[in-house]
Amino acid sequence: MRDALLTAQELERRLSIEFPEGFNPESGLSITEVWHGGCRVRLGFSPSTLRPGGTISGSTMMMLADVAMYVAVLASIGWEPLAVTTNLNINFLRKPAARAMEAECRLIKLGKRLAVGDIALRSEGEADLVAHATSTYAIPPANRALHDGNITPKL
Amino acid sequence: MRDALLTAQELERRLSIEFPEGFNPESGLSITEVWHGGCRVRLGFSPSTLRPGGTISGSTMMMLADVAMYVAVLASIGWEPLAVTTNLNINFLRKPAARAMEAECRLIKLGKRLAVGDIALRSEGEADLVAHATSTYAIPPANRALHDGNITPKL
Amino acid sequence: MRDALLTAQELERRLSIEFPEGFNPESGLSITEVWHGGCRVRLGFSPSTLRPGGTISGSTMMMLADVAMYVAVLASIGWEPLAVTTNLNINFLRKPAARAMEAECRLIKLGKRLAVGDIALRSEGEADLVAHATSTYAIPPANRALHDGNITPKL
Amino acid sequence: MRDALLTAQELERRLSIEFPEGFNPESGLSITEVWHGGCRVRLGFSPSTLRPGGTISGSTMMMLADVAMYVAVLASIGWEPLAVTTNLNINFLRKPAARAMEAECRLIKLGKRLAVGDIALRSEGEADLVAHATSTYAIPPANRALHDGNITPKL
Repeated sequence: MRDALLTAQELERRLSIEFPEGFNPESGLSITEVWHGGCRVRLGFSPSTLRPGGTISGSTMMMLADVAMYVAVLASIGWEPLAVTTNLNINFLRKPAARAMEAECRLIKLGKRLAVGDIALRSEGEADLVAHATSTYAIPPANRALHDGNITPKL
Repeated sequence: MRDALLTAQELERRLSIEFPEGFNPESGLSITEVWHGGCRVRLGFSPSTLRPGGTISGSTMMMLADVAMYVAVLASIGWEPLAVTTNLNINFLRKPAARAMEAECRLIKLGKRLAVGDIALRSEGEADLVAHATSTYAIPPANRALHDGNITPKL
Repeated sequence: MRDALLTAQELERRLSIEFPEGFNPESGLSITEVWHGGCRVRLGFSPSTLRPGGTISGSTMMMLADVAMYVAVLASIGWEPLAVTTNLNINFLRKPAARAMEAECRLIKLGKRLAVGDIALRSEGEADLVAHATSTYAIPPANRALHDGNITPKL
Repeated sequence: MRDALLTAQELERRLSIEFPEGFNPESGLSITEVWHGGCRVRLGFSPSTLRPGGTISGSTMMMLADVAMYVAVLASIGWEPLAVTTNLNINFLRKPAARAMEAECRLIKLGKRLAVGDIALRSEGEADLVAHATSTYAIPPANRALHDGNITPKL
């Protein structure tokens, strides 16, 4: 496994500066692991994410999937906060438990202009997926010379 | 245009009770219009939704699209808080302005088991779309006898 | 409505040369109307497109949606056969009748690098949608200088 | 790995009867492997699937993804030709080589009403994905009592 260009700690530090509203100690988000081409992001449980039926809201899961994709892209191309989502597709599969959730993102394409990732969401400690997303990010022109675009994900 | 089963005011009142974290005076969400088969939902601008580049975050837009779909479903089948998203696909088209955003949702299918909607997101007062989503909701069995499933959207 | 850069007849003629397997008199495809930012494409009925249950196959509808998107892009940026689909998302809404089908594609973004379209599929003569798709096309670099990217779709 | 309810040979035999236009010796489709919760389907190369640029057409890849999903569902719930696609989302990642293509489908949800699968498309003998799809199938009511809905995919 090739190393990420930024460590989990460095990414958390920079994201908390650039996205203070989204990435802060109260948000419950933490980066568990990063590598070239992917990452794991954890969302601690908070009663505020519940919706009727005692389940975690879809908006919360979409946010977690999007953050995981962003972290996987930054870990693989280097710090580029202007990388933006162009598409996200999510299937909600099972009612998630009222506890922490983990997202695992693996890039399935890392081109000069576009990165595409596959994101699996699970309740912490469970094997079944609660949701599955795919997402595309556009990489700003300035960054394109900085990464070689090579990735052969371990699917 | 056929009337909604619940008015905008009634939906806002019930949502603020069932989803106090998501639908409250501080959230900036308000239901502008509802009809059988669709709705308009407004999200007031808040600096907390910005991300690097001065643009509104993708998570915020996904939340707004999901809320609009939920409101359109409830307006058309009646109060059923256990209706849940099974799929959401969103394309981010343009950088949104740092101001209020409006979502217009039109159901393109309203079946006994599934509802599918088309959601257009625009910065307030602009014609161009900033994002476009489609979403599917599963309707709980108990509710299925209560609505006739007829809808011919004005596309 | 701004004119297309190529007429329906010219597009049909060129497509039948470049895609002889897909666009030929036996395929049943014809371009009904084109304009800057959209088009209508018709697929004549053929028993070979049926699947169990007497309904038109999903593969046939996906092909029709993709062709409509391609035609809308070419009508708007000019002849560029190397434009390629990067994403297609389709929801199948109703069982289509065993008769001709029409796709109406409207571009909701026409950028220098990416075009995004909304495609409605209907059985000929009916108002209800049988399927709805959104699709993204990547525009090759050589073509990007040739179009101005302006489009304000009439949604 | 739990066994499929139908073997690859049995599925090929039945599909060639029910879908003679889609599944026949000339179509190039063959089922390489099936198990409870997934399958591999191969599409032999045919010049008729090429599009400008010497690449296999998007429509061909969408058809292959849809067939793989259908085979995975039938292998897991038993013979049910009326199972239908409700959604398919596909990302085209790389230009496929002009040779045989393989689709590997893994179900990530197998419920009583809905099955959701993840489909990876590769040029034969290559590790990189050329396309990636997710798809949802609706399972007809009559079949729902026949399968237990348990699946823990090996992701």
